[in-house]
Amino acid sequence: MDYTVKSASGYDEKIGELVFMLEHVREGTLQATSGLNLEQLDSMGHGMANSAGALLAHIASIEKVHQLISFENRDFNDAELKEWGTAIELGANAREIICGYPLAHYTEKLASVRAVTLRELKAKNDSWLYGERRWPNGVAYNMYYLWFHVLEDEISHRGQIRSMAGRLLEVEERV
Amino acid sequence: MDYTVKSASGYDEKIGELVFMLEHVREGTLQATSGLNLEQLDSMGHGMANSAGALLAHIASIEKVHQLISFENRDFNDAELKEWGTAIELGANAREIICGYPLAHYTEKLASVRAVTLRELKAKNDSWLYGERRWPNGVAYNMYYLWFHVLEDEISHRGQIRSMAGRLLEVEERV
Repeated sequence: MDYTVKSASGYDEKIGELVFMLEHVREGTLQATSGLNLEQLDSMGHGMANSAGALLAHIASIEKVHQLISFENRDFNDAELKEWGTAIELGANAREIICGYPLAHYTEKLASVRAVTLRELKAKNDSWLYGERRWPNGVAYNMYYLWFHVLEDEISHRGQIRSMAGRLLEVEERV
Repeated sequence: MDYTVKSASGYDEKIGELVFMLEHVREGTLQATSGLNLEQLDSMGHGMANSAGALLAHIASIEKVHQLISFENRDFNDAELKEWGTAIELGANAREIICGYPLAHYTEKLASVRAVTLRELKAKNDSWLYGERRWPNGVAYNMYYLWFHVLEDEISHRGQIRSMAGRLLEVEERV
């Protein structure tokens, strides 16, 4: 792990710092789930609404939709919604559908989405980051916020995965 | 909520953006816990290691120790460790000691620690943010990383509080 925030090489300055943060957070997400087997990925833990696997799929889906919004100024089309909708929404459908996969299924999806993010961000400059648009309800946002929110969402769900993974491993040790 | 990342007024540019993020995240933390009563703040939820109240105290303690490290280049002294140590460490002691307080106890502590953070950051410039030091084990870090980590830690525990608060409110509705 690198504990000096600095602009990742190959990017405009602030975008590069954002990339440092995105990659740093991802490293922590991969550490939090490293070694979880299929059963642990599907397990909800007592009273948890979502499995660790579903949360990993959700993290990838949130990054994907923020690509569409920020790079293409659009939401999911029907085909994309079919592919990503369950992971975005979580809840009952996700519990039923997003299970039975090994860790690599999730990490490969995370990596392939991330590759697009990095390629696109490389082509942008810092002034793009401050570009403002409005949601349909009139509320303003900028591109910086969208990518800050991708970070925020991943860290938040990683916190949930960590408390779950801690418990799953404890149970494992007691058995 | 403001969804355009921009430098908070009165700060150097990048520090101001960090302040925007710190304040934005805090707003979410206060929303996530708004309305929790004493019993809900003390409740662990099934299988959770820490109560929502203990996590709020932890968020304040993490910000406090990062003030000492970044602004004073030191760790807790004995008196401070006595005051903050349980919240920093969480776990069994926190479960026993950090309970029986209403929400205002936690939000007042969060606010008083935050006031010091903002006052100190106002006096710094962006080059301070990139200043590097080394941990006793030789690993380098910069001030930017320390404050990014304060953000990261709060968001992560807020994610745990959210999954717990969701459950506590569901239970409430079923009763």
